[in-house]
Amino acid sequence: MQLEPILISGHWTTPAEAPKTFTAFNPATGEALAAVYPVSPWQDLDEMLRAGTEAAAALARTPAEQIAAFLEDYAARLESHADELVRIAHIETALAEAPRLRDVELPRTVNQLRQAAAAAREGSWSMPTIDTKLNIRSRFEPLGKPVVVMGPNNFPYAFNGAAGGDFAAAIAAGNPVIAKAHPAHAGTTRVLARLAHEAVVASRLHPATLQMFYRCSPQDGLRLLGDSRTGAMGFTGGKSTGLKLKAAADAAGVPAYFELGSVNPVVMLPGALAERGAALAAEFAGSCMLGVGQFCTNPGIVLTIADNPTTAFLAEATAKFAAAPAGALLAPDMPAALKKTSARLVELGARLLAGGSEGTEPGFRFQNTLLKVGGARFLEHSDGFQEEMFGPCSLVIVAEDADQLARCIGALEPSLTGSLYSANDGKDDELHDRLAPLLAKRVGRILNDKMPTGVAVTPAMVHGGPYPTTGHPGFTAVGIPASMRRFGALRCYDNFRPARLPAILQDANPGGRAWRMIDGGWTRADVVR
Amino acid sequence: MQLEPILISGHWTTPAEAPKTFTAFNPATGEALAAVYPVSPWQDLDEMLRAGTEAAAALARTPAEQIAAFLEDYAARLESHADELVRIAHIETALAEAPRLRDVELPRTVNQLRQAAAAAREGSWSMPTIDTKLNIRSRFEPLGKPVVVMGPNNFPYAFNGAAGGDFAAAIAAGNPVIAKAHPAHAGTTRVLARLAHEAVVASRLHPATLQMFYRCSPQDGLRLLGDSRTGAMGFTGGKSTGLKLKAAADAAGVPAYFELGSVNPVVMLPGALAERGAALAAEFAGSCMLGVGQFCTNPGIVLTIADNPTTAFLAEATAKFAAAPAGALLAPDMPAALKKTSARLVELGARLLAGGSEGTEPGFRFQNTLLKVGGARFLEHSDGFQEEMFGPCSLVIVAEDADQLARCIGALEPSLTGSLYSANDGKDDELHDRLAPLLAKRVGRILNDKMPTGVAVTPAMVHGGPYPTTGHPGFTAVGIPASMRRFGALRCYDNFRPARLPAILQDANPGGRAWRMIDGGWTRADVVR
Repeated sequence: MQLEPILISGHWTTPAEAPKTFTAFNPATGEALAAVYPVSPWQDLDEMLRAGTEAAAALARTPAEQIAAFLEDYAARLESHADELVRIAHIETALAEAPRLRDVELPRTVNQLRQAAAAAREGSWSMPTIDTKLNIRSRFEPLGKPVVVMGPNNFPYAFNGAAGGDFAAAIAAGNPVIAKAHPAHAGTTRVLARLAHEAVVASRLHPATLQMFYRCSPQDGLRLLGDSRTGAMGFTGGKSTGLKLKAAADAAGVPAYFELGSVNPVVMLPGALAERGAALAAEFAGSCMLGVGQFCTNPGIVLTIADNPTTAFLAEATAKFAAAPAGALLAPDMPAALKKTSARLVELGARLLAGGSEGTEPGFRFQNTLLKVGGARFLEHSDGFQEEMFGPCSLVIVAEDADQLARCIGALEPSLTGSLYSANDGKDDELHDRLAPLLAKRVGRILNDKMPTGVAVTPAMVHGGPYPTTGHPGFTAVGIPASMRRFGALRCYDNFRPARLPAILQDANPGGRAWRMIDGGWTRADVVR
Repeated sequence: MQLEPILISGHWTTPAEAPKTFTAFNPATGEALAAVYPVSPWQDLDEMLRAGTEAAAALARTPAEQIAAFLEDYAARLESHADELVRIAHIETALAEAPRLRDVELPRTVNQLRQAAAAAREGSWSMPTIDTKLNIRSRFEPLGKPVVVMGPNNFPYAFNGAAGGDFAAAIAAGNPVIAKAHPAHAGTTRVLARLAHEAVVASRLHPATLQMFYRCSPQDGLRLLGDSRTGAMGFTGGKSTGLKLKAAADAAGVPAYFELGSVNPVVMLPGALAERGAALAAEFAGSCMLGVGQFCTNPGIVLTIADNPTTAFLAEATAKFAAAPAGALLAPDMPAALKKTSARLVELGARLLAGGSEGTEPGFRFQNTLLKVGGARFLEHSDGFQEEMFGPCSLVIVAEDADQLARCIGALEPSLTGSLYSANDGKDDELHDRLAPLLAKRVGRILNDKMPTGVAVTPAMVHGGPYPTTGHPGFTAVGIPASMRRFGALRCYDNFRPARLPAILQDANPGGRAWRMIDGGWTRADVVR
């Protein structure tokens, strides 16, 4: 049996002793793929921590320019290997080759790496802060320890532990990464890690700047995150696993960043539905079925008030859901899970408007599913109705009136996002302003007249939210430079002799690039004496 | 029995049922003070969380100007009640009325409140970030929940839950505070809370903006921090209690900020001791005995290399320690604890140079204590030798040579600070540059030619460090505005209609005061179209 190798300390190695193994699947056919991957024993993870500790010390001394060059070289390799990457990711995830993989997710990933490179080069992310009178100076520095990144199943590139947002942020902040592949796209991750490692070698970074494994036992995963050699954890995935990993990290004082489930409520106010209900039905259905609904920002709950336009909106949306074919889901167990959750919602009192069954084509399929429940019923079982359906499924809550709608919003659990659609003519303004504060405090990002699915990579983005959506309300997983500061340690130089200061904290601003807070104001100028 | 009241929801109340009680002590005489304080039952804490939740919603809607005015009013009340505050704090802590309480700590506390007011008014702390092209805008907002602040015994004002740094940061960021008095200065805290509450009323803030109790059972303390209604925890104190509270907060997803023990290593390089050993001995002894050594930044370990100047330095320092009278410590159990720890160090192989016994005068006293150990011996028991002695005590490590000194630094546990003294003529430069990176990664603040005791309130300060010195390496407890962001939640407004945006995120910068990151650059200007 030929085992796929893992990347430890700059070497592609296969385990010496016969370990447990696993294979990935083609979700479009349901068939197991040929490649066989090892479940790594603790000894391999331990060796990664050892090498990662060395790499962390080396990276902390490496000029930012060299790290930026690595990120840019890696980005270019992703572009020149697009065919290979798209081919394998499509086989492993069934996501469309185009536009999704080739034209959307891969360019996004490349762009993210380039933004991270620019931020590393510029240096503003580290928030250099200078008190000239007291000669006290501080900035964010690398953690000095490897960051463990475990990516989710739904983004083979953009959130991949070896290429995605957490990877880019951790490296750009000067930390090595130990990446765990998502087993559903182990092959894609292997290609990414190969390209990343080629760029590491070409850029002359420490060979353990990126290390990668595919899978480990649950207890070894907890041991890895709870090891004091681990600098931080980045995890995107399911709530149950995420909270166990967080507990292990917390106990060791390892900062735990994660992003778990989210139902992303969308409030459709009456005036908006009266004005443009058909367009909104199309927008909603498109957003909910995008990527076969496998987005952490999928609109899983829609809130409305009962009236004729809402009835028409429901009919339009139902038709759209029913008409679209059942796409292939990422993992074998997903259709059954969706079946179970949607059935439970029906038991609780929801009405099935479309879908509700597994698909008939080969592969892991579930029909696009729309459910409806009255506001009063929702309020009676608001916990049960908020169970996340990770797929092309959504629940529409129809409240009797504005007061009940407000109570429904008040019963929502935390989410990454919350959207409010309102009339263009101002008819909904009063209601919007009443509901927005209720919604805002439950989410990290609040939207107007926009579906939550798109998560732009901009400094102003917040991809986070109240616990347990994420682990800390003050951080975002998307958006450079803020996402980099998750992987930084504040360090202060008090009364340091000038020549001994890090260059970016000296009086002269190197290259005049970084924004620095000098005596209370942001500037790119040198310290003026 | 007349019980001192606690402050719940704007009312000074005494518990209905007879609770457990306690009294404070005069450390200078060892006598119990007259006032009797309640140990609050859960029902009182529960009511504080309920009222605090209401106050959080109200404060989040309160204009920053009004919050700033409250902080300034409170600061002015502290100044006009200095006599009362100094009198009671002196009785409860035995810290000198002047200069310590009246001329140092009280002005520092007042200054901190005024800096927090200025930061709240200016708004830059919230890091408004605007992407004009995508119309995505974000900033830090209040947590929307009350912050629980538990202050330490050693700063009756500056770190007090009802007046100190965490209080000022939490309020200025728009969050109400539930303050737990340190039982050692319950009376001081009661006066502070009275003045704060008068300012709350005068400023027309929500009456539960500050609530205060003196003490609760350990299990109720854990329940309070582990309650999902709690927004964050600020704790300064002992490691054992702090880590238990952190675990409770972690399990509920409550951000836990704390500051626990720290030995604050000071490295005296050979050239510095040869050049100015006598002056350094005086500087070190003064820093170590300041405030009877009860500083979290007390220099608890000094590292040297064996040679004649080091011998002279030790003789000078020993004389200073022996000559100074034994000051009064804050709590009854402290002399016995210091006796035990210093005896354990002697057992491990340290030599007692001065002190080592309880004081003979009345009150809670321990002699100024200096110990010495060889580098080899230190390395054999480096854990045991790093036990914090919270008092006027320090251990000097004498290494055989530079290599052993480097190994000793490599064996140091995390601390808030680390200092390096080097010769002015450049003789130590090479050794400094070799040792500084080793020391830096173990501390939040690294100093040149300066004792760690002073913690200036400046934006460039870092009062934090690697776990378990603090809970997260990316934050500081001192230094505005960074300390405020511990109590902020990131929130993003995506595609929001302009008039609905918070004022500070609109195109026009209100008052032109706040620094905002617009399209990648910091500016105080309006958005230019």
